[in-house]
Amino acid sequence: MTTPAGTSEYERILSDNRRIAASLERSDLPATPRRKLAVLACMDARVSVEEMLGLERGDAHVLRNAGGLASDDAIRSLVVSQHLLGTAEVLVIGHTGCGMLAFRDEDVRRDLSGRTGADVDLPLGAFSDLEANIRSQVDRITTHPWIRDVPVHGLIYETDTGRLREVV
Amino acid sequence: MTTPAGTSEYERILSDNRRIAASLERSDLPATPRRKLAVLACMDARVSVEEMLGLERGDAHVLRNAGGLASDDAIRSLVVSQHLLGTAEVLVIGHTGCGMLAFRDEDVRRDLSGRTGADVDLPLGAFSDLEANIRSQVDRITTHPWIRDVPVHGLIYETDTGRLREVV
Repeated sequence: MTTPAGTSEYERILSDNRRIAASLERSDLPATPRRKLAVLACMDARVSVEEMLGLERGDAHVLRNAGGLASDDAIRSLVVSQHLLGTAEVLVIGHTGCGMLAFRDEDVRRDLSGRTGADVDLPLGAFSDLEANIRSQVDRITTHPWIRDVPVHGLIYETDTGRLREVV
Repeated sequence: MTTPAGTSEYERILSDNRRIAASLERSDLPATPRRKLAVLACMDARVSVEEMLGLERGDAHVLRNAGGLASDDAIRSLVVSQHLLGTAEVLVIGHTGCGMLAFRDEDVRRDLSGRTGADVDLPLGAFSDLEANIRSQVDRITTHPWIRDVPVHGLIYETDTGRLREVV
């Protein structure tokens, strides 16, 4: 269902945004990121990319999905980021306690197929080794023919301390 | 190339993170988002999801890609978000001045194929109508067999004022 009578969470969101926007300075920042940086990270609720890196509005592209994977969609976004909006450096950031370490694809997919009656070809991207996964994602980016020859760094964010640890 | 001698931007990032982490309170937030919310938005550098919605660490999953598209990868992330981490509401947020409105897929793909010599099957997801695009992304989410029957809202973020406008 789309937009039902209005959930209380949604009403809170709209109200919070009105308050926040009212105290925001009007901005005419350009679309091109000031620091020429693109960051690929996990969607995890404890991972605030802007906060951990001290990014200001306009500084960097931020790409996020479950696990911070260099999926086709992330590659698509990086291609747009580099070729149309001029970014020239990539950070790939995984994190401790990632939910993608906590299940096996085949178990969840079997359960979803059974419960919904729809056997969808949708790998969920679970992985079992955080560091190895980051190396794989960095490799996927650096070897893609449409990705520029720019620095691509892989790091782990420690959700309990807020610190970044270098992987590759 | 991965991790060259160390770019100055990268050194600044590591140094900023050390400073930020030092002043952060240690946290043991759970992986499940406190507000049971998942937000899909554009990677644009002017779009800070946490800031515009007043989200705190631990509140919501944040998914971002070029255009805020409900790609297979975004659907994958939402399936993980809903079925493994308990979110029960979705916001899809486009924004004014989106870079995806400023080019045509076929032009850029032809250019990239020519320049790199690699003819990759990678649609870039450009669109020409911001509101129609948001409606399409919301539809794609609500009709997917593995997405739960939860509220899915579509909005436009005005990058100059910081305000959200409801679309669907």
